[in-house]
Amino acid sequence: MILQGVEWKVRKGEHWVILGANGSGKSTLLNVFNAFIAPTEGRLFAFGREYGEDDWNEVKEGIGYVGSEVNRMIEPGESGLDVVVSGARAMINFWGETNPKEQRAARSILRRLGCLALEKRYWRQASQGERQKLLFGRALMAKPKVLFLDEPCAGLDPVARSSYLEFMESNASRPRSPSLVLVTHHVEEITPSFTHALLLSEGRVVASGIKDEVLTSKNLSIAFGSRIRLRRRAHSYGVTVLE
Amino acid sequence: MILQGVEWKVRKGEHWVILGANGSGKSTLLNVFNAFIAPTEGRLFAFGREYGEDDWNEVKEGIGYVGSEVNRMIEPGESGLDVVVSGARAMINFWGETNPKEQRAARSILRRLGCLALEKRYWRQASQGERQKLLFGRALMAKPKVLFLDEPCAGLDPVARSSYLEFMESNASRPRSPSLVLVTHHVEEITPSFTHALLLSEGRVVASGIKDEVLTSKNLSIAFGSRIRLRRRAHSYGVTVLE
Repeated sequence: MILQGVEWKVRKGEHWVILGANGSGKSTLLNVFNAFIAPTEGRLFAFGREYGEDDWNEVKEGIGYVGSEVNRMIEPGESGLDVVVSGARAMINFWGETNPKEQRAARSILRRLGCLALEKRYWRQASQGERQKLLFGRALMAKPKVLFLDEPCAGLDPVARSSYLEFMESNASRPRSPSLVLVTHHVEEITPSFTHALLLSEGRVVASGIKDEVLTSKNLSIAFGSRIRLRRRAHSYGVTVLE
Repeated sequence: MILQGVEWKVRKGEHWVILGANGSGKSTLLNVFNAFIAPTEGRLFAFGREYGEDDWNEVKEGIGYVGSEVNRMIEPGESGLDVVVSGARAMINFWGETNPKEQRAARSILRRLGCLALEKRYWRQASQGERQKLLFGRALMAKPKVLFLDEPCAGLDPVARSSYLEFMESNASRPRSPSLVLVTHHVEEITPSFTHALLLSEGRVVASGIKDEVLTSKNLSIAFGSRIRLRRRAHSYGVTVLE
């Protein structure tokens, strides 16, 4: 998938959702920001620094990422606290000397996230919903300015999903939260604190900007190449595919 | 996860949905039927034959399976036809001599599924929704009597999901369709042809039987350990998590 003419800016205090069909370029966009793949054309900036010009490893420290790849790499015997601590140095699994300062920071994150009960639980004992929360906490350890959440509710049962969405919303609404960027297939997962939306189709931007201006039946129908009706309830969205 | 006292029978002409929280035993049940794991207690029958007494490899031929494990094992350069043909002998990827009879059978399945356009397309070129349909076709090659579908819509965008659900429904409503057993987290995916439902919680049966008797707000609340309201529309379901 090649991204073409994608102009996208995330400003402080904004929370974005990225929507698009399978193969629209969502994953490519995430991979570019995580520097898993390098842009061959175009320019990529983060926090005023440019990819190729600056040390992107330093820039990357401002960008957190929660995705299923990380999930699969955690050892079953790591405790919840270990998982969070390991995020301090962008390492997976924590084998080094325990650092009391990092442990305190991790515990404070667990407390803030309402996940202190997971501190001593082994990764293998944690439910899928609990794991997603731990990975969120792990990403916070590096104090990111932007936190990408790649389909965090995939595979969660309805109750675990509902609990995760509440968790995400309460984090997004904190004044000092990093900007969240939620990549999802489900408009039902766009909680009220999300301010902006980016709609991709075949590597191009269909619409980008304020959530309520971007999320319309017309734009979604263009993005997904099929007639879609977007329903708005009080604070949430739903879609119906019409053809 | 240990299954305890699970009594479950699928009869000819029935289509089942299996619902349950993460960790409720759904995957264990699938794995037992596919003989990926052996039951340590209790008795397992299929088509009048008993596990441990009969050659389960023969019995297994009657049981088709579509899951993400298979998806990951297909080589990117296999054509749609190859993928389907490979199902004839429960092999993954087709390297042997091409057998014209099996090729004809595979083409006829593709036609019946409305997927003839995928015949020559490479696996790597197929969208996620198209892949799910090919895996369904692949499973049909072995003429199963029961076909397990393990979260077939996971990761599909709304339009691909809607297309897959129509595809599944049109197959389920064919008179000579194998019994479908759909494992899912989403009641929205239960199409009208499904006749029965099995609700699991912590390895035990919460309810089992005729769909409309099993799928109630009360049973779902017990199964998921949280207050859930089930909504019924004309031919479909939705849930709201209340607490």
